[in-house]
Amino acid sequence: MLTDACPTASRTPADPRTRIVAAAERFFREIGYQKTTVADIARALGMSPANVYRFFESKKAINEAVVGTLIGELEAMIHAIADERARPAADRLADVIVTMHRRSLSLFRDHPRMQEMIEAAMTESWSVCQHHIARIGAVIATVIADGIAAGEFAPTDPERAARCVHAAILRFCHPVLVIKADAAFMPTLDEMTAFLLAALRAKAPE
Amino acid sequence: MLTDACPTASRTPADPRTRIVAAAERFFREIGYQKTTVADIARALGMSPANVYRFFESKKAINEAVVGTLIGELEAMIHAIADERARPAADRLADVIVTMHRRSLSLFRDHPRMQEMIEAAMTESWSVCQHHIARIGAVIATVIADGIAAGEFAPTDPERAARCVHAAILRFCHPVLVIKADAAFMPTLDEMTAFLLAALRAKAPE
Repeated sequence: MLTDACPTASRTPADPRTRIVAAAERFFREIGYQKTTVADIARALGMSPANVYRFFESKKAINEAVVGTLIGELEAMIHAIADERARPAADRLADVIVTMHRRSLSLFRDHPRMQEMIEAAMTESWSVCQHHIARIGAVIATVIADGIAAGEFAPTDPERAARCVHAAILRFCHPVLVIKADAAFMPTLDEMTAFLLAALRAKAPE
Repeated sequence: MLTDACPTASRTPADPRTRIVAAAERFFREIGYQKTTVADIARALGMSPANVYRFFESKKAINEAVVGTLIGELEAMIHAIADERARPAADRLADVIVTMHRRSLSLFRDHPRMQEMIEAAMTESWSVCQHHIARIGAVIATVIADGIAAGEFAPTDPERAARCVHAAILRFCHPVLVIKADAAFMPTLDEMTAFLLAALRAKAPE
């Protein structure tokens, strides 16, 4: 049994799906995905396992919902930054990148057992992960499109540029890579952001 | 016992260290790092395990030599490209990047058991891996420095730019990431290379 209060306990009446996902995330964070059982999650919520299975057909399905919630939270954070239309696109893009980096650090470096959850999701539910990654990429693309429209960035395909930016910052955001903070021959996040902004501002090669 | 001939068998007299490393790499590639024992390697070479231990104190030490050999081969390949001074730096850099990508695919995607060897090296011998990564980065930096000297690229710190390029192409070269070839929202290698060259050509932001 975990000691801290269920984060959704105060938000009654939370629907059972939300409560199950919140409890599962807490278990995955503290004891790890492998050791967590559906029975553990049910017990923490005062439910029967059969009741949990009414909402999720498997631990894998619960994990997909956990991943969806985590990515949904990140998406909301970076959407809020992207929507600050009064600010230059370059500033918003830099903020989006730093937000993604800090979020990865707080989720995965500060809670090493979350690695198991992510490895399970990447192995068992790769297409679900891909879907979420694409949604984050779409937010990056909207900021780049804004920058092109404002004349801050050179005209280019914003989707393609977003794919390049997203892939380039993988080292700073990927759940598995972000924890290797001691990497030699690594740029700082500021250096990388400045480099990527230079590419976006650059005229296309003749 | 592996069926194919030891790659060094024809090159006599190979020194015992080289033969041990070549045999170990073959085992790691075909049956995986975990299942390979020092006794397997010794037997394949007609040596006693004690003789292997005269040259390497542990399987970990053998693996470090295997990693060193693989990176040394890659380093030689990209050094040869970097040294083609008559060619534009941009072309050489693009060739270096595509060489690193293809090499990763042929080592890790085409031989999935090599993952174990790399995971062991990254866990047990991270500082050795880092050292090798830095040597690859140094080759990238020399090409960028050439491009700056020739006026192809904007003046900047070539080491810092090389760190950014190296980190940005991680998705295409990292032993673990390169095998996820089905990734959505991924640029092609050509798109990424064009994007990075744009950054290198760009004037520094005012």
